[in-house]
Formats: sequence, structure tokens, C-alpha cells
Amino acid sequence: MDTSALATSFGARLPDWVPAELAEVPDVLPTDEDRIRLVNRLAERNHREDTGGPFAALVVETGTGKIVSAGVNLVLSSGLSSTHAEVVALSLAQTRLGAWDLGSPDGPDLELVVNWRTCVMCYGAAMWSGVRRLLIAGDGPELEELTGFDEGPMREDWAEQFGERGIEVVRNVLRDEAVEVLRGYGERDDAVVYNARGASAAH
Amino acid sequence: MDTSALATSFGARLPDWVPAELAEVPDVLPTDEDRIRLVNRLAERNHREDTGGPFAALVVETGTGKIVSAGVNLVLSSGLSSTHAEVVALSLAQTRLGAWDLGSPDGPDLELVVNWRTCVMCYGAAMWSGVRRLLIAGDGPELEELTGFDEGPMREDWAEQFGERGIEVVRNVLRDEAVEVLRGYGERDDAVVYNARGASAAH
Repeated sequence: MDTSALATSFGARLPDWVPAELAEVPDVLPTDEDRIRLVNRLAERNHREDTGGPFAALVVETGTGKIVSAGVNLVLSSGLSSTHAEVVALSLAQTRLGAWDLGSPDGPDLELVVNWRTCVMCYGAAMWSGVRRLLIAGDGPELEELTGFDEGPMREDWAEQFGERGIEVVRNVLRDEAVEVLRGYGERDDAVVYNARGASAAH
Repeated sequence: MDTSALATSFGARLPDWVPAELAEVPDVLPTDEDRIRLVNRLAERNHREDTGGPFAALVVETGTGKIVSAGVNLVLSSGLSSTHAEVVALSLAQTRLGAWDLGSPDGPDLELVVNWRTCVMCYGAAMWSGVRRLLIAGDGPELEELTGFDEGPMREDWAEQFGERGIEVVRNVLRDEAVEVLRGYGERDDAVVYNARGASAAH
């Protein structure tokens, strides 16, 4: 075959407002509330800036609260359907640290912080990344009800399955604030639901 | 915070042997067997070349058999834990076509071809990509038994869930050949199992 038309590389880049916003943030985020407050703010801003859906994620050192990376949903701006906030934050942490395994015994324990329970893709992405803790504002039907996004076929025992792989799950931190971010997106007239054809739209 | 150390972009690139191998392949792969034979060959070569695990994927036009993209597992070479073969092939197809939705009504129906059932991350990645058909050589316990990789917590009704989202699943095409590729990897003394800490190693 003629291989000249094939793409041989791909990538994604954060919008400039993300590092600009982070420049205003303290060096460390000591509490779970501090961490969730920031992902909620980034998730809200991501859709208001029209750079993607209302989702953000951080990779943070669990012990110190040092921010290793920040990601937002980039599906619309990168043109890559896998660039959910979690994949972006994990990939940026791995790029910064130069290692695919964020659970290396040589480094500090790292966690993934997200403003809602992961979809089924990011569930696996978190599982394979080496993080040792998943901190989410909430889980439950509000995401699908308020935004129209499909989370995909998750198992009932999804949290226990993390536990069996040595990953702690912490949830229900500033959950109401996270719901308001999702609601704000769902109320937009121009909300784009960029997943499977079978998913119902928000409007 | 000081944002100068943050990574703001990430990406991955195919090893040079992939386009070189594809240059020897016909322009179109008319049958399911043709398509699986190629992913089996790329999967085998990927681990022999030490560019990643024994997994490969193609995005193909279902009707014509035209190859849109080819991916191999790049976790070890890219340093990104999400660069499984399926994510690579889908991302390269989206890069080539300039669209996050491979299911656009303006284009031909596209399918994802893989040498084994997806892990839970790639299950979601396939679901959100817009492909309308998933063609896999096989599924079943051989992957975990022969290689030590963890596929993650999949639901019993995983294939039906694709169907509900308009994605056809076709399996058991050159399955024995695919098992032999997995066996060849598992028999290596230096096989690396690059996923969750909780997964048992092949050796």
C-alpha cells in the first residue's frame, strides 16, 4: 500500500488558560477539599472557554498535595476521542516524570483527582497508570441525567475492583458543587455530547 | 504555583518498522481473515522488535477494506500507559481524518480490528470513537493465562453493550493464530507486564 497518507504520530496540548489559572493556585493542595475545589473550577472553566466538556483531573502527590499535572477534557480541541480529562492528566504526569508507571516504588504515592466518577475508558486508564488513590467529587446518575453523556458499561463492583488492585477510592467531597458544574453544562443550548452515537443528547 | 515544570503537551509516534511493514501490504484487505492476519503479524513483530506488548490494531473501512490507520502497543516506547494498540490506531485515524468522530455520517463506516478482546480501557475507547464494528481474533482466558496481563473488570454483557450502541462485534477469526502470538510473548524470559500493580506477572 501507499503509506504516505498514514498518520504516524498524534498528540494533544493544553489550552493556554490552564497553566495561567494554575499560576494563581498555591504550590500544594493539602486537603481533599482543596483538590476537588480546583478540579471543579477547571471543569467549569473548560466548558465556558469552549475548550471541551465539563471535566478536569489532577495528578497530585497524596502526601504533600503537590500538583504533578492538570488535565481537562480536550476531545473537541484535540480531535482525539480518548483525550478525556483523566487521560490528559495521566499522560501529562507520565510525560513530566518520564515514566509510564506512576506507581514506581522510587517515587511518592500519586493520586488521580476528578470531578466525577470516570467513564469506563478512564476507569481502565486510571487502573493501568499506577496511581494509588482515586479521589472523586461524586458518582451517581446526575452525570448522565444532567449532561447526556454516556459513562459506559461499568460494573456494580467498580470501586471494589480498584481496591483489589491496590487503589483506594475516596468519594463524596464537595459533591453538590460538582453537580452544579454538570448542571451548568447541561443547561447550555449548544452543549455537545461527544460520545457514542447511541448516547442520548442533553437537549 | 510555579507552573514552569508542568508538562503541557503529550504525544506518541509509531516506530519506523510499522509503515515499512505496511508498505508491503495490499492497498485493501477485503476479508475479515485478511484484516486479522495483518494485526496478528503486527502484534507478533511489535514484541519481537521490543517496541511494546503483543498487541496491534487497525482502523479499516468496512466496505472496501481500505486501511485508514495502524497502531501497535506503545506503552514502553512512548512512556504513556494509555497507548495501547487500540488507542494508538483510533488516535492516528482521527489525526488523519481531522475528526474525533469516526462515525460521521459523511464518511464510510469504519471498524476497529484487534488481535484480542480489548481491555476495559480500550473497550471504552472503542465505544467513544465512532467505529461501527469491532473485529477481534478472539476473547477468553488465554490472554491473561498466557501473558499475565490484566484485562480489567469487564461486564459479562460487554458485547451486547456494544450492540446497544450500534457497534457490531465479530470474533473468532484466526483465533488459534492469535493465541500463538500471545503464547510467544508469555514464553519470553523478559516479558514486561506493564499494567496494574495487582496483576500477576507472566513469570
